[in-house]
Amino acid sequence: MSGGSRLDPWVDAYAARARGMTASEIRALFAVASRPEVVSLAGGMPFVQALPLDALAETAARLVRERGAEVLQYGSGQGDVTLRGQILDVMAEVGITAHPDDVIVTTGSQMALDLVTRVFCDPGDVVLVEAPSYVGALGVFRAYECDIQHVAMDDEGLVPEALDEAITRVRAEGKRVKMIYTIPSFHNPAGVTQGPERRRRILEIAKREGILILEDDPYGLLGFEGAPPRAIRADDDQQVVYLGSFSKTIASGLRVGWAVAPHGVREKLVLAAESAVLCPSNYAQLTVSEYLATQPWREQVKVFRELYRERRDALLDSLEQLMPAGTTWTKPAGGFYSWVTLPEGLDAKAMLPRAISALVAYVPGTGFFVDGQGSQSLRLSYCYPDADRIREGVRRLSGVIESELEIAQTFGTGHVLRNAQGPANPAPDLL
Amino acid sequence: MSGGSRLDPWVDAYAARARGMTASEIRALFAVASRPEVVSLAGGMPFVQALPLDALAETAARLVRERGAEVLQYGSGQGDVTLRGQILDVMAEVGITAHPDDVIVTTGSQMALDLVTRVFCDPGDVVLVEAPSYVGALGVFRAYECDIQHVAMDDEGLVPEALDEAITRVRAEGKRVKMIYTIPSFHNPAGVTQGPERRRRILEIAKREGILILEDDPYGLLGFEGAPPRAIRADDDQQVVYLGSFSKTIASGLRVGWAVAPHGVREKLVLAAESAVLCPSNYAQLTVSEYLATQPWREQVKVFRELYRERRDALLDSLEQLMPAGTTWTKPAGGFYSWVTLPEGLDAKAMLPRAISALVAYVPGTGFFVDGQGSQSLRLSYCYPDADRIREGVRRLSGVIESELEIAQTFGTGHVLRNAQGPANPAPDLL
Repeated sequence: MSGGSRLDPWVDAYAARARGMTASEIRALFAVASRPEVVSLAGGMPFVQALPLDALAETAARLVRERGAEVLQYGSGQGDVTLRGQILDVMAEVGITAHPDDVIVTTGSQMALDLVTRVFCDPGDVVLVEAPSYVGALGVFRAYECDIQHVAMDDEGLVPEALDEAITRVRAEGKRVKMIYTIPSFHNPAGVTQGPERRRRILEIAKREGILILEDDPYGLLGFEGAPPRAIRADDDQQVVYLGSFSKTIASGLRVGWAVAPHGVREKLVLAAESAVLCPSNYAQLTVSEYLATQPWREQVKVFRELYRERRDALLDSLEQLMPAGTTWTKPAGGFYSWVTLPEGLDAKAMLPRAISALVAYVPGTGFFVDGQGSQSLRLSYCYPDADRIREGVRRLSGVIESELEIAQTFGTGHVLRNAQGPANPAPDLL
Repeated sequence: MSGGSRLDPWVDAYAARARGMTASEIRALFAVASRPEVVSLAGGMPFVQALPLDALAETAARLVRERGAEVLQYGSGQGDVTLRGQILDVMAEVGITAHPDDVIVTTGSQMALDLVTRVFCDPGDVVLVEAPSYVGALGVFRAYECDIQHVAMDDEGLVPEALDEAITRVRAEGKRVKMIYTIPSFHNPAGVTQGPERRRRILEIAKREGILILEDDPYGLLGFEGAPPRAIRADDDQQVVYLGSFSKTIASGLRVGWAVAPHGVREKLVLAAESAVLCPSNYAQLTVSEYLATQPWREQVKVFRELYRERRDALLDSLEQLMPAGTTWTKPAGGFYSWVTLPEGLDAKAMLPRAISALVAYVPGTGFFVDGQGSQSLRLSYCYPDADRIREGVRRLSGVIESELEIAQTFGTGHVLRNAQGPANPAPDLL
């Protein structure tokens, strides 16, 4: 087996699920895009520099010095019980009431996504996802060999009629629908938010059809207008598994997220978590817990909100001023992203190398679908670069789109290579 | 679906793999065993109190203060490149040479176990494991619906002839062997170590048969006599995936482990890791990296070695003095554990409630098998309690065994309920 002339001697030994694990072809481009002269509107990296670093440093030091025997030791597979109680306070902001027993702490909410899928999905089970959907979730569903089916969105997110139709269609094919995966607030990548009536109807369909809702809510507290949207989970504690994260409200580098689940599901999730990582890091968990207990975390979330609102405004203003006619985009009321649709005939992935040559980067739309949709779209993030950089990025991007349009008008659009690649594997650049 | 009279309304919705996820029946007992008056010889918790806490505290604070934008941010799915280089220095101690590209950092080496299994094992694939084997590995293999087959050990660990026989037998049944999972040094739970010739023969069999060796080595640097044993991976970089951990040489609460794998396998592992958690925690990784760079970590490992040797001596001495005739145990040359075999007719799980009543706890042997073996055995850990507590624990345990023997002599052993439960889910108590 070892040696031999093949590139990978183990290629025949991999599990069936490993076949779907392939690196994104756009990764190489992103390696180039990380050069400082490139304005990256691609990555979903929170602006952690806005945190009170001195206070966090002191928190970390105090924890290790005074509670080292606990902080540096294995902990419970379900997560630290004090932190689980504090998570209830955070979720109260989106209307959720629960018990600390209902919460499981995970290594980022990505791990919660993995565990829920592990517990529910056999190969071939259908997961209904928005069109487009979060690339990291698509990666998980693919890793568990799910049958991923997209459901249409509009400016208020997932369309209930389309959801109903998808359930009927998929069941008529003899398939089993295991979950409806949705990001109701400040959607990644679509930048839209479900209103209360929309949420009510989606929950009603899920209940009627007996299908679990997997509600992913990393951006829920980062709305720019009024109170945070009420979570779907706030109105039903049996039909929904809710995923939350400290990656955007505190720091992504800590890798602390959580799931709230009905009792029986939560028990399975804890068992799955113990098998996956034994227990989440006490070091990271207790840092979060101590930060929540001693720092004005709500004020800090407000700081993030103001920062991202200013950047959102810079993005939308400059799109308005600079984008060629025929380009459209969503107007996010929170979160990190706007979804841009190019003029007819343009292909966002084919355009990406030219954009990077012009020193601006984005994520092409096809990455957010498993079925080749999205070629005319792209995602812009405004979370990391400052307002001036965002404006400069949009200026460069609009120049690239204009050149593409000229080429298309001169030579026709037939030269555009339509590429139906599925989702890229998740990576920080593509969050 | 929601409501209804069943206890868990989602019970019919779970994946097939979730059926194997059940909590251990001995967990309730361990909840009692964590009371301070109980001497626990059950848990595999490293004695992290021996770390230089002030230096670690200062390291953590300096990192957050000076490199916050990096420490608190998402990182690479493969792990921090500086840390990966430092891991090479650690592995040099067991004879391994590799390149930083060959290393992937994981959320504890438990996660590396999960990823390797995810990448290689379809349901029904055979994994060969030692008899007994690490409970956390058995949990992972079961979660991926592997066919787990035990292979006999002796005082030098995995028996090559038995390995050969198992491969032949399993293949004759038409099954596919995907991995040989082994802990060659200071085995958990058996407390034995493969000699160099034993390792050479196991590697030879794996090469001849084209089967991957999954070499798990969390205790390799914690030997009490001479240099650390040379890893199997040191003699072959294509046939072996090697797993390492900082849980026992620095701190388990950081959750930083790693895998070293042949190129193609490593690529798959990174993709699987990104799907599972996006990236390991920069906060934890850079804390480890800075500790390795600024602290005398080899001296600290020596401190741990001396500490655990003293405790091992206390255990072996008191076993020698106090255990009733007919009881045998392994004599670990490193690591955390000794494997005790009770006199004929006694059952370690049936005895556990009585042991806990006598204020001493251990892990019954059946937990380390999937097939009901091990009822006459138990695992004792000497890593956490100090020498006096260990002696007191053994004194209590020997009293319990003596009473059991008296009962057996009076009433015969027919009253012992043989319990063929499989492995418990991993938990810190059972590590």
